[in-house]
Amino acid sequence: MSILYRSDAARAAGWANYFAQHAPDLDFRIWPDAGDLKEVEYLIAWQAPAGFLAELPKLKVLFSSGAGIDHVDLSAVPAHIPLVRMVEPGIINGMVEYVSLAVLALHRDFFDYMAHKANHVWDPLEVPPASARTVGVMGLGSLGCAVLERLAAFGFKLRGWNRSPRTLEGVETFAGADQLQPFLAGCDVLICLLPLTPATKGILNRELFAALPKGAALVNVGRGPQLVDADLIEALDSGQLSRAILDVTEPEPLPADHPFWAHPRVFVTPHVASMTQPESAAPILLENIRRDQRGEALRDVVDRGRGY
Amino acid sequence: MSILYRSDAARAAGWANYFAQHAPDLDFRIWPDAGDLKEVEYLIAWQAPAGFLAELPKLKVLFSSGAGIDHVDLSAVPAHIPLVRMVEPGIINGMVEYVSLAVLALHRDFFDYMAHKANHVWDPLEVPPASARTVGVMGLGSLGCAVLERLAAFGFKLRGWNRSPRTLEGVETFAGADQLQPFLAGCDVLICLLPLTPATKGILNRELFAALPKGAALVNVGRGPQLVDADLIEALDSGQLSRAILDVTEPEPLPADHPFWAHPRVFVTPHVASMTQPESAAPILLENIRRDQRGEALRDVVDRGRGY
Repeated sequence: MSILYRSDAARAAGWANYFAQHAPDLDFRIWPDAGDLKEVEYLIAWQAPAGFLAELPKLKVLFSSGAGIDHVDLSAVPAHIPLVRMVEPGIINGMVEYVSLAVLALHRDFFDYMAHKANHVWDPLEVPPASARTVGVMGLGSLGCAVLERLAAFGFKLRGWNRSPRTLEGVETFAGADQLQPFLAGCDVLICLLPLTPATKGILNRELFAALPKGAALVNVGRGPQLVDADLIEALDSGQLSRAILDVTEPEPLPADHPFWAHPRVFVTPHVASMTQPESAAPILLENIRRDQRGEALRDVVDRGRGY
Repeated sequence: MSILYRSDAARAAGWANYFAQHAPDLDFRIWPDAGDLKEVEYLIAWQAPAGFLAELPKLKVLFSSGAGIDHVDLSAVPAHIPLVRMVEPGIINGMVEYVSLAVLALHRDFFDYMAHKANHVWDPLEVPPASARTVGVMGLGSLGCAVLERLAAFGFKLRGWNRSPRTLEGVETFAGADQLQPFLAGCDVLICLLPLTPATKGILNRELFAALPKGAALVNVGRGPQLVDADLIEALDSGQLSRAILDVTEPEPLPADHPFWAHPRVFVTPHVASMTQPESAAPILLENIRRDQRGEALRDVVDRGRGY
């Protein structure tokens, strides 16, 4: 019974330690010390190229090591092998921290004060109460819901948009393409937490920005290809948008000559909003393996039809 | 029955509107349109010089328009006139927002990423879970307790220090001068929310910084004179402290040639962490006036002995 970990090397030891302690019956291997690939039944990976999967004849389950699965070529994964998303508290906590930080930084004028500091300027700006700002979240999965719950504690007005309808206490929710424009019309800060699918590629574009109130801000913690870079710069330069905070870009790393770096109203972080934490992720993944071993249904299996 | 408001002019209309609507029996005046000063029974003010108070023979209560009262010369206020602190949800919410933002910005390396952005550098830094960081709050009054409660939601380890003992769920508390050093020894981030008194003037000094773990960060949202500026710069330059976020300085505004502006690891905001919001403060102040009119005890009266 072998498990192969083929992902972020910096975190491999955390994974191995947990399995050594809590599942000594399982043979936990770290790439490239993979041993005989014919023995691997469970694979934890970020990418899973077809050529590599073909070398794993006994593979039973493919676990994504990160929250998204857009980096996996689903057509390369045989239909009988389930792909499992990573849903674990470390990812959720990290995202809640990052989005809270981004929204508070916008709400409390931190980027203005950064500029004032560089110019040695003391200029207090008026602070409206949080209840005077509306924050909208696109994507009401486990991350989006956790983010909204924390923002509620600060008293922001909240909206949510999702492909299929959702009901959340204290959040005005909208669903589907028809309700996208009315949703956007009320968002002072827009958070993108959508999965990357053919339907969401390029969704953050000129038309969407035009539907936001003038001076709104964008926080993209979804995926880089959801954003049309040129449209964002146009919207910032025209004043339609006030600021953008981007944790994801296309490509990653963002090349040094990309205009986002030099733009005074774009803030870029290097895809760090949320990371799988072995300490909290390993127990959940192990529990899923135990379910599989007992013949029970796996949790968090990707629906190949909808693509997430 | 006259009330005189002599404080921040930008917020005067908010106060006047509330009183006009909810207390039409009270004659609400805004400085300098003060009318006959001999009729003023209640004064809402930031500063109250002796010469001015002497012109108000009927003054019954002095209300501070801000959370602190250190700007009021208590010796100038006759002993029979109670001084009331401003304790209102707008101030508390603003402080919770600011301190959450400051702690998250430190926790999530925002200042590093600001520098990376200026250099067009994509360099993901390791993110420890919030539970691996200890945040300590000095001053466990209503603001300190509200701040700790919100930080708890993010999962930070929490400590609190207060002049007199306090018990707070989920917070390791310390009290008095004897327990200051053991408190400091565990704080990765230190928040100063102390009132300014003779005992707290200069408390943020070399000796205190040396008692913190190497690389700790400081957030001062108390008062500027609590910090010994030269000791902070020395601690930052030696690496004993990693960063400082200062919302208060001495003097205010901070002069353009003060070394804090140019220091790469000091971030200054112009005393905006928390502001009295007329919408939430006026109802509380009016209720206190009504108590006084009914002959009941006032809330939030300053204890002149301890100075806050």
